[in-house]
Amino acid sequence: MDTSRIWTAALLVIGDEILSGRTQDANIAYLAKWLGVQGIRLKEVRVVTDDMDAIGAAVNALRVQHDYLFTTGGIGPTHDDITVDAIAAALGVPVIVHPDARAILADHYGDKLTDARLRMARTPEGASLIENPRTKAPGIRIGNIFIMAGVPMITQGMLAALDGQLPGGAPVLSRTVAAWTQESTVAATLGAVEKAHPGVQIGSYPFWREGRTGANFVLRATDPALLATVASALMAALADIGIEPVDGEI
Amino acid sequence: MDTSRIWTAALLVIGDEILSGRTQDANIAYLAKWLGVQGIRLKEVRVVTDDMDAIGAAVNALRVQHDYLFTTGGIGPTHDDITVDAIAAALGVPVIVHPDARAILADHYGDKLTDARLRMARTPEGASLIENPRTKAPGIRIGNIFIMAGVPMITQGMLAALDGQLPGGAPVLSRTVAAWTQESTVAATLGAVEKAHPGVQIGSYPFWREGRTGANFVLRATDPALLATVASALMAALADIGIEPVDGEI
Repeated sequence: MDTSRIWTAALLVIGDEILSGRTQDANIAYLAKWLGVQGIRLKEVRVVTDDMDAIGAAVNALRVQHDYLFTTGGIGPTHDDITVDAIAAALGVPVIVHPDARAILADHYGDKLTDARLRMARTPEGASLIENPRTKAPGIRIGNIFIMAGVPMITQGMLAALDGQLPGGAPVLSRTVAAWTQESTVAATLGAVEKAHPGVQIGSYPFWREGRTGANFVLRATDPALLATVASALMAALADIGIEPVDGEI
Repeated sequence: MDTSRIWTAALLVIGDEILSGRTQDANIAYLAKWLGVQGIRLKEVRVVTDDMDAIGAAVNALRVQHDYLFTTGGIGPTHDDITVDAIAAALGVPVIVHPDARAILADHYGDKLTDARLRMARTPEGASLIENPRTKAPGIRIGNIFIMAGVPMITQGMLAALDGQLPGGAPVLSRTVAAWTQESTVAATLGAVEKAHPGVQIGSYPFWREGRTGANFVLRATDPALLATVASALMAALADIGIEPVDGEI
């Protein structure tokens, strides 16, 4: 764990199915939490269409801005799976059939290893593989880019294979204080408590439920003692203005 | 309806709660479908942190690449709501208290219109308002940028207020054909059918359910007659290779 700096990642979601609204994304939240455990902060997500240029431009923008770039989607066997080609083109390297990936697929499919299935053994030259415990066709790592499947069950299996493998910093911890109040009633209090405690961020998330208005206040910090101190300070400050604080999420 | 060209939009989701994994995004899919009905294609989504520079850079990149830019999140009354300031800075205009927004909030809050609540009347100079039927504090339109709330119930109310107001082209229609098969078995067939029918895109989305493997093939086009023709052609082509086609989504 290297706590001397903040480690960051970006996610590039590749898929017309997300941008058409057909499929509700489930990978953003899962990857965000997984990265948090590794001590890496997800700082940006982009979703682009199944288009070579759109993928390439996003890859080249994001890979240099962050320690890690994850991509999801577009690595299957069909004509709309162009992620490997797009990333290879963006990096200026050729696409090869990776011998280890070919061996994995040959072992899995036996004499049914057709050309379409062999597409799933293609990688940019210089890549290594990420194990896919669910459906075998591997993910791909090249430099700081991690090329993953888009189907959440498969994505999650690939992340499990990477668990604890990536250098990161201190995990961001969070704690929630809540109240049945309008955000605007407590806005000044929230701002003052955050300002008084450098190193803690407070996010305010309102909700409306059963005709009542409430808000969850999420405190984030890497230091657990500081987090506890600020949670107590916020609850006391809410009580001071006549708002009953709730310790935890409503 | 202007069918002489394709109308495009981008969405910028502003929110640490999405990037921390605390909140599962629900606005991408909803906006995508809503735009589809207006004849506008969602081409890119970005999610950025509650940071002035990150918001500003994304706004200035996306607003010039697309006919419309929607943003969600960060327009409430608390210290972490910085979207208006960030967009005004990106556009190089000052932030003002919009007189119509002030009047809406004064009508709603009466003599409880505090400074914190007045924050929700701030807009970049030159903006107009988007009605918020749910919680009153309005959304904001400036140029081709539509600044919306992040809470899905409120976002959806603002979109309803914009229904049919934005120039667009022909809506993209979709139809799904499916089969209990591995994608790789039908990959060549899918590619051939798409190639034979310009104007139709076919996306292939595999799934694993109850120990069986299947895939949905989503056909997208603006011409309903073409869509029907290609659906029939794909079902016939699947049957030709011994795969029983399903007319509709599995």
